[in-house]
Amino acid sequence: MSEENLQNNQTPDLSLNTVALDTRDIEVLRQAVGHKNRAAIVASLKDQHPADIADIFEQLSTDDRLALVDLAADVLSPSVLAELEDEVVEDVLPLLEPQQISEAVTELDSDDAIQLIEELDDEQRAEVMAGLSERDREEVEAGFAFDEETAGRLMQREFVAAPEFWTIGQAVDHMRAQGEKGGDTLPDLFFDLYIIDTHFRPVGYLPLSSVMQYRRETPLRDVMLNIPVLIDPKIDQEDAAYLFEKYNLISAPVVDENGRLSGMITVDDMVEVIQEENKEDMLALAGVSEAGLTDTAFSTVRARAPWLLVNLITAICASFVISLFKEEITQLVALAVLMPIVASLGGNTGIQALTVAIRALVTRDLTSVNTWRVVRREAMAALMNGVIFALLLAVITYVWFKDPKLSLVIGVALIFNFLCAGLAGILIPLGLKKAGADPAVASSVFVTTVTDVIGFFAFLGLASQFLL
Amino acid sequence: MSEENLQNNQTPDLSLNTVALDTRDIEVLRQAVGHKNRAAIVASLKDQHPADIADIFEQLSTDDRLALVDLAADVLSPSVLAELEDEVVEDVLPLLEPQQISEAVTELDSDDAIQLIEELDDEQRAEVMAGLSERDREEVEAGFAFDEETAGRLMQREFVAAPEFWTIGQAVDHMRAQGEKGGDTLPDLFFDLYIIDTHFRPVGYLPLSSVMQYRRETPLRDVMLNIPVLIDPKIDQEDAAYLFEKYNLISAPVVDENGRLSGMITVDDMVEVIQEENKEDMLALAGVSEAGLTDTAFSTVRARAPWLLVNLITAICASFVISLFKEEITQLVALAVLMPIVASLGGNTGIQALTVAIRALVTRDLTSVNTWRVVRREAMAALMNGVIFALLLAVITYVWFKDPKLSLVIGVALIFNFLCAGLAGILIPLGLKKAGADPAVASSVFVTTVTDVIGFFAFLGLASQFLL
Repeated sequence: MSEENLQNNQTPDLSLNTVALDTRDIEVLRQAVGHKNRAAIVASLKDQHPADIADIFEQLSTDDRLALVDLAADVLSPSVLAELEDEVVEDVLPLLEPQQISEAVTELDSDDAIQLIEELDDEQRAEVMAGLSERDREEVEAGFAFDEETAGRLMQREFVAAPEFWTIGQAVDHMRAQGEKGGDTLPDLFFDLYIIDTHFRPVGYLPLSSVMQYRRETPLRDVMLNIPVLIDPKIDQEDAAYLFEKYNLISAPVVDENGRLSGMITVDDMVEVIQEENKEDMLALAGVSEAGLTDTAFSTVRARAPWLLVNLITAICASFVISLFKEEITQLVALAVLMPIVASLGGNTGIQALTVAIRALVTRDLTSVNTWRVVRREAMAALMNGVIFALLLAVITYVWFKDPKLSLVIGVALIFNFLCAGLAGILIPLGLKKAGADPAVASSVFVTTVTDVIGFFAFLGLASQFLL
Repeated sequence: MSEENLQNNQTPDLSLNTVALDTRDIEVLRQAVGHKNRAAIVASLKDQHPADIADIFEQLSTDDRLALVDLAADVLSPSVLAELEDEVVEDVLPLLEPQQISEAVTELDSDDAIQLIEELDDEQRAEVMAGLSERDREEVEAGFAFDEETAGRLMQREFVAAPEFWTIGQAVDHMRAQGEKGGDTLPDLFFDLYIIDTHFRPVGYLPLSSVMQYRRETPLRDVMLNIPVLIDPKIDQEDAAYLFEKYNLISAPVVDENGRLSGMITVDDMVEVIQEENKEDMLALAGVSEAGLTDTAFSTVRARAPWLLVNLITAICASFVISLFKEEITQLVALAVLMPIVASLGGNTGIQALTVAIRALVTRDLTSVNTWRVVRREAMAALMNGVIFALLLAVITYVWFKDPKLSLVIGVALIFNFLCAGLAGILIPLGLKKAGADPAVASSVFVTTVTDVIGFFAFLGLASQFLL
C-alpha cells in the first residue's frame, strides 16, 4: 500500500472522466516519447496519481514503454512501480538501475517490496539485495520464506500493537511518538490497533476510529473487540481473501506458529487477490492459461493452443462416435443435419450447471452439507429443461422432416443428454475439487466432451434402433 | 458495515477450519431446529460471529430456515441480517415483525439499512418506515432517491469532516467529543477524516493513521492529502468499485451536484460489488441469468431456459447450413463425421478470445487507444493457431480417410473459421459495449453462432466445390 503526498490541492474533476482513462493524456505522452522529449514526458505525468501514471504507461506499446524508460526512468517512482501489472514490471525492471530498484524496495511497505523483487532475475536480485540496509534485507528474506500466492507473501511486517494493560491515551501517545520519530517502524497506512498479551499474542483489536472516540483513560482491555480471525501465513491467498470478504475485514493480524503477532494483511491487497482469482477462474473456464493486454500474438498462441489441442482430441472422440453410424447417416441424411442441435443444447446446459457450481465453490456456498441437495436440484432442473426443449425440438423436427419417429428419437435423446449434462456440470467440478485440482481448470472440456459424445451416441444410436 | 462488540475474549482457532464452515455447527443447529428446541438454537449460535451465523443459516434448507425464524427470530440480529444474501433476506423478512426490522434499520449504518429495506414488499415497507425516527426515515428516503446499483445506494450518510483551518488536535477532540456523546452521528467505523472548505466541499483527506502520527498543533491544511477521486452518487456501483481498486481506496467521499460532501463509501461494500459483478459476468458468459444456492429447481429452469431457447434458434441456423449440403453428405459421409471438429475448435477459439476481451473491458485495460492493437493481435493469434491446428487436423484426416483433398479442404476451412472466431471474439463484445449493452450478456451465443455457421459452411462448401 502506498500513498503519494501530493501537496498541490487541485480538486479533481467530478466526472466520469475519472472512470475512463483520458486518452488524450496517452496521446500527449506518446508524442513526447516519439520526439524523445524528456522534459515533455516528465511534464505530462507530473500532476498524475501514481495509479494513473501506471495505467497510462501500460497503455503504451511495448516499444514506447521501453523508449520512455530509456529517456525518463525516474517517472517510474516506487509507488508507480508498485501499481504496474506484473507482466509490465517484468519487462521494465531489467532496464532500471539496481540502485533505483533498491530505493523503491526501501521506500515501499514490505509486501509491495517483495512483489517487486519477485519479478527480478537472479543476477539483478543479488545486486538489488546488496543495495538494501540490513534490516530491509532481512524483511525481504523473511517474506520469501513463504510460498508464492500465500498470505505470507502479502503480509507486511509493519503494524501497530499495544499491550492489553495500556490505556487508549498510552496507545495514542505511542503512535504519535513513533510518527514523530519518522523512519519506517509504522506502516504507511494502518486501520487497526492490535492488542497483545505479554507473549506478543494478539488478544483483541480496536479500529482506529474507535481509538479516536474513547476517553484517554479507558483501558484497552475494556473496550477491545474480538479478532474474528487470525491469519496463518501459510494459507492460500485466496483463502485469506475469502476471510476478508466474509468478515468485512480492513486489516487482519498474521501470527507465527507460536501464535505471536508477526505481521498484518490489508484489504487493498485482498481486493487485488479477489480480482486476480476471479480472472483466473473465468479464463480457466474458457481454456486460456494466461492473458494480458501486453501479450504478443505469439504468447497468446502459447496460452491458448494447449486447450485447443485437448479440444481437438475430444472433438475427434465425438467424430469417432459419429463414424460408428456412417451407414445410418447415408440412409437418412436428416440425422447429420439434426445431430449438432442435440450436442449443442446439451453442451450449453452442461456449461450453465458447471459455471454455477464453480461460482458456488469459489464463494464456499457449496459445502458437504448441501452437496446432495444441489446435485438433486441440478438433475431436476436439467430434466425439466430437457422435457421443455425436447417437446420444442420434436415439433420443429416434425415440421421440417415430417417424420414422427424422428421427432420422438430426437426428443428422447435430448432429454437424456440434458440429464447427463446437468449431472456432469455439477459432478465434474466437485470431483476435481475432491481430487485436489482446481475445479475451474479443464472442467469445461470434460463437460462438453460428455455432452458431445452422449449427444451424438444417444441420437444416432436411438435412430439406428428405431428408425432404420 | 457492522461490528459486534463481543466482550468475551476467546482467541479464535488458528486453523483452516476458519476458512471452511464447520459442518458440525450446521448439524447441531439442524437438530435443534428439528426438535423445535429454542434454547438449543440460541445456544448453538451464541458465540458465533454474525458472518458465521449468516453462513450457517444460509446452509439450512428452506424449510429449516423458516422453522428457525418461527422459533427464534431474535438470533437474526441486525448484523446477521446485514450479512445474509439478498435472496435469503427476501425469504426471511416477511416472517419478521416490522418492529424487529425497524430496530435493525435504526442500528445499521444507512447503506446496510437501505439494502434491507430494498427487499421488503410495499406493505411491510410502509410499516417499517412508520417505526423509524424522523431522522432515520429521512436518511432512508434520501438513499432511495438514487437508482439501484448506483454509488448513491451504497453510500452512508455518516462521515467525519473537519474544516481546513483546524489543527490535528481540534479534529481529534471533535471526534472524541462526538464519540463520548454517543448516538449515531459518527459512522460505526471510519478510516479517513475528510477536510472541507467553508462551502462543505472536500479539499483533502487524512487517513486516521496519519491523524494519529502528527503533532496536535499541526494545521490540517499543511498535511492533508489530495483526494484521488470524488464519487458522484449517480455513477454505477461497478464504476465506483473500479475507482476503489485502482486507487487502493479504503473510503471515498461522495459529493452532491454542488460539490458538497454528502456521504462516504467504504471498501467493504466495494468488495461485495466486485464479487457481485464478477459473478454476473461469469454467469452471463455461460448464459445463466441468475444463480443462488437457495434456488429451487423451478427457478433454476427459469434462469437458464431463455438462453437455451436462443441457443436452440442458433443451432437450427447451423443445421440449416448443413441441410444445404445434404447431397454432398450422402455422397461422402466423412463430411458428416468431420464437420463437428471444425465447428467445435472454432467455437473454442472464439470463446477464448471473447473471455479475454470481456476481462480486459471489465478491468479497463481495453481502451480506444489500444483497441486496434488488440484486434490485430487476436487476428494474428487466431491465424497462427489456425495454421497449427489445420496441419494437425489435415494429417489426422489423411490417416483416417486416406483422402488428400479432404485433408486440404478441412485444413483451409479450419484456418478460415479460426480467423472469423478470433475476430468475432473481440469485435462482438466491443460492438455490444459501443451499443451500450453489457458485453458479457449474449456475446458467447453470438460468437458460437458465427463459428458454427461459418465452420459448417466453409467445410461443406469447400467440399462441394473441390471434392465432388
